[in-house]
Amino acid sequence: MKIGIIGSGNMGRSVGILWAERGHEVFFSSREAAKAQAIAELAGHGARGGTNDAAAAFADVIFYGVRELPSKVFSATDVLASKVLIDCNNSPIPEDFAFEPIAESIAEKFAADVPNAHIVKAFNTFAQEVFELSPDPLGQYQVSCFVCSDNEQAKQTVINLIAEIGFNPVDCGELRRARMVEGLGDFIRFMIGGRKLGSYATISVHQLPQAKEQRLGGRKPGYA
Amino acid sequence: MKIGIIGSGNMGRSVGILWAERGHEVFFSSREAAKAQAIAELAGHGARGGTNDAAAAFADVIFYGVRELPSKVFSATDVLASKVLIDCNNSPIPEDFAFEPIAESIAEKFAADVPNAHIVKAFNTFAQEVFELSPDPLGQYQVSCFVCSDNEQAKQTVINLIAEIGFNPVDCGELRRARMVEGLGDFIRFMIGGRKLGSYATISVHQLPQAKEQRLGGRKPGYA
Repeated sequence: MKIGIIGSGNMGRSVGILWAERGHEVFFSSREAAKAQAIAELAGHGARGGTNDAAAAFADVIFYGVRELPSKVFSATDVLASKVLIDCNNSPIPEDFAFEPIAESIAEKFAADVPNAHIVKAFNTFAQEVFELSPDPLGQYQVSCFVCSDNEQAKQTVINLIAEIGFNPVDCGELRRARMVEGLGDFIRFMIGGRKLGSYATISVHQLPQAKEQRLGGRKPGYA
Repeated sequence: MKIGIIGSGNMGRSVGILWAERGHEVFFSSREAAKAQAIAELAGHGARGGTNDAAAAFADVIFYGVRELPSKVFSATDVLASKVLIDCNNSPIPEDFAFEPIAESIAEKFAADVPNAHIVKAFNTFAQEVFELSPDPLGQYQVSCFVCSDNEQAKQTVINLIAEIGFNPVDCGELRRARMVEGLGDFIRFMIGGRKLGSYATISVHQLPQAKEQRLGGRKPGYA
C-alpha cells in the first residue's frame, strides 16, 4: 500500500517506520524536506522523503499528523480525491487539563474542509512511546485503537493497517463518533500527564466472558 | 462498614450483595420498602431493608443509584452531613446514542445540591452484568473503576470498597473530572448498545511496561 506521512513528528515517524517494515511503500513529508529525507533514511525499506504535496500525490493512504486544516497544508486539495486520510489529532492540552466539552470533532472539521477525501479518525488515544512496543510484545496487551469514518471501505483499510502493527482495532462507526473518540484522547492524556501514569498508559475496550450464572439477580444479559 | 443502597435497581442490588458478602453491614432501600426487604433477604449476611431515609440515617457510605437530586429523595439532607455518597449515574441514553457534550457532570450537580455530603463519582463505566463475575474471576481481567472526589478520605474509602470486589480503582482526581468520567460512561454505553458489544464490554486504563529501547527514534519517555 502507498502511504504518505504528513507531519513527521513523533507519531508519524514511528507509525511510518512500522508500516515500511511491514512492506508498505512509505513517503515521509515535512515542512522541511531535509527532515523528511532523514527520517526516510532512518526508516529504510525503500522509504522516501519529500514535500507534503509530493507525499499526498504519491499516497493512497495519508497519515495526517498535523492540526492545520488540509486545505492550508497542501497547495491543492484535488489530489486528495477518494484518498484515505487518517486524522490522529487531539486538541492542544489546556492548562490543568481542563478540556472543553467536544461539540464538533477535529475529524469532522477536516471532513468539511476536504469533502473529496475519506477521513478516518484513529491513533489518537496513546502516546508515541507505545509504538516502541510494536509489533511485539504489543499484541499481547490488546491495546484498543479506536476507528471511525463515514466511508466503510476506508475504515476497513485503516482497520487492517492498525491490526498489522499489533493494536486491536475498535470500530466506532460513523465519523461523528470522533467526538467521543477525541474525548477518550483527552482523558488518556489527562491520565498520562495530569495523573502521572506516564507515556505507556493506554485506554482500551475489552469484552469479558459472560458469567456462568446470574447469581446477583440482575436482568438477563443483553443490555441495549 | 455501614453501607446504604439507595435505589435497589440492578446496580445497587448487585454491589450491595457483594459488599454484604464481604462482611459489611448493608441497608437496602427503595421507594417500595417491600422490594428493599426482598433484596435484603436475597442478600443474606444480615442485610436490612427499608426506606431511603432509614438507609441514609444508618449508613456511613451511601451507594446512590438514582438520578434524582438527593434533596428530592430524602426528607431532610442534614442526615448526609460528612457521609460518603457514591454517584454511579450516567445521563439517559439519547436516540442513536447522540450524547450531548458534558459541560457539568451529574456528580457536580449532586455536590451543589447536598454540599454537606462527600460526593464520590464511581461505578458508571460498566453494566450490572460485570458484577456477576465479582470477585472471581473479575480480578484477573483488571477492569478499571474510575473514581473522583473533592474529599481525599472519602475517595480512599471508595477505592478500598472497589478493590474488595475485584475491580481496579483508577484515581481520577477532583470531582470536576467526573465530566470526563461520565464521558467514558457514555462511550462504553455506546459500545455496549450502539456497537453491540454487549453487557460484558468494559473500558479500562492500563500501564504497559516500558520499551527496552527507543528504536523508532521518538522523544524520551516522560510525556506530560
